[in-house]
Amino acid sequence: MSFPEQYEIYRSQFEEELQAECAGLNFHPQVLGESMRYSLLVGGKRIRPVLFYAALASFGADWKAERELALALECIHTYSLIHDDLPAMDNDDFRRGKPSNHKKFGEANAILAGDALLSHACELMLAAAEKGKLHLRAARRLAAAAGERGMVAGQSEDLLLTGKRAGEKELFSIYRRKTGELIAAPLVMAAILSGKDEARAERLGYDLGALFQLTDDILDETGGAELGKTRGKDREEGKLTCLSVFGMEKSLRLADETARRCEKTLSEWEGENSFLTELVRNIRSRNK
Amino acid sequence: MSFPEQYEIYRSQFEEELQAECAGLNFHPQVLGESMRYSLLVGGKRIRPVLFYAALASFGADWKAERELALALECIHTYSLIHDDLPAMDNDDFRRGKPSNHKKFGEANAILAGDALLSHACELMLAAAEKGKLHLRAARRLAAAAGERGMVAGQSEDLLLTGKRAGEKELFSIYRRKTGELIAAPLVMAAILSGKDEARAERLGYDLGALFQLTDDILDETGGAELGKTRGKDREEGKLTCLSVFGMEKSLRLADETARRCEKTLSEWEGENSFLTELVRNIRSRNK
Repeated sequence: MSFPEQYEIYRSQFEEELQAECAGLNFHPQVLGESMRYSLLVGGKRIRPVLFYAALASFGADWKAERELALALECIHTYSLIHDDLPAMDNDDFRRGKPSNHKKFGEANAILAGDALLSHACELMLAAAEKGKLHLRAARRLAAAAGERGMVAGQSEDLLLTGKRAGEKELFSIYRRKTGELIAAPLVMAAILSGKDEARAERLGYDLGALFQLTDDILDETGGAELGKTRGKDREEGKLTCLSVFGMEKSLRLADETARRCEKTLSEWEGENSFLTELVRNIRSRNK
Repeated sequence: MSFPEQYEIYRSQFEEELQAECAGLNFHPQVLGESMRYSLLVGGKRIRPVLFYAALASFGADWKAERELALALECIHTYSLIHDDLPAMDNDDFRRGKPSNHKKFGEANAILAGDALLSHACELMLAAAEKGKLHLRAARRLAAAAGERGMVAGQSEDLLLTGKRAGEKELFSIYRRKTGELIAAPLVMAAILSGKDEARAERLGYDLGALFQLTDDILDETGGAELGKTRGKDREEGKLTCLSVFGMEKSLRLADETARRCEKTLSEWEGENSFLTELVRNIRSRNK
């Protein structure tokens, strides 16, 4: 089976789970469920749940059985985008080519939609914990990745350094926490649930997160309308990016080096590594 | 022991746990931990953890052992206040007589402090779940109370009905979800952990939440500076309150009836009911 076909199998399985979960978000007041659904279903590559499913499959685990943690991952990612787009934060009117949550529902509803999605993720993680000790440990790893020392710390650091002079150390700290934590979490959770090397999964996750962020920064400057956002926005806003720290040439070289490091870690993977290796190459060469 | 002395025992035990937890919120960037601590430690009566400890004690349980769920409760309550105070929400510059989180740290940091506190609560609930099945069930009850069908739904409904004509049904729906859920959760969690009647604990919780909210609305109109907020603010902003629905006389009567209903539920309590009964009377006659 080709890489895109395999990707589509994981993605469409997740999409089905997500549709089912969204159908359950039906309560009073309607606007709250509606605004949660809007951002959950606005699309995207579903990279985090796909990584989770693919890593589970690479270890020979029953990946379809892990819907709760896959959904929790996506709820956390989605809430972080909603809050990140708010006027007081990144002030983005568009997300994936559509109006961002607060443009569609207003700021107050967007704040609450984010809060509700994080609460919902918490409920999903506790539901997963019913399955036993390993699931509880995996859920705790995810909660830590999302929390005050993980993704939220990355957001806070990003905010703090916007418009400031900062260097390589700060940039990679933001990459690791703002992006890397929620990319590493699905890989580490898969390792926990399958009894495989967690440190190796984590290493791959942080590198993959950095690769994702390096290509994102590069695309912000070179990408076209297919991104669904405004070109050069990071630079105009004084965001700390690999381009502001290293310039284009070194950034491209760093992306290549990071991709090679991912492939090296995958060469020692305790399982089938071909899909994940192909994924790394796709991220390196993506154009949206 | 007198009621105030007993209250102080529960409150100071919780305050100690909270101080210890806050000491652990020490990471980069400093501002995130600082803004979390600021709102957690700004004070307050700690009514939710005190209710939890008191209900556990009323059932003869080892209440001091349940720090994780007590802390999770207060983290959830605190995050909800931070987000509720934001300009796009209730736009409150003060909370308990001190600058609200966003006035002290700015809007973006306040949004993130709230997110971090909810994540932290999630981590605490998962930590509690390590203790066994009953703890996991109690944690799930708390997460549901905080979530899209619980407290967040109450916030959303409150927002939706501000400035609208609405009646008794809507008012009590907001009371139950915005306030009642997080007042009922500690009582129900105590019943779950002690193997006692959960429905009775829940009934007491919802009534107590309504009583709290009735007296809050009344105090908003009649209270003095000791409240730490602006008198008559609800009315000026077109908030749905018991006064806008029933007027003062009927509101006072409803508060009395609700307090009596609480006392009746407590007369059938499967445990020592004197502290909780006294607590009901104190809420009814509170002036701040």
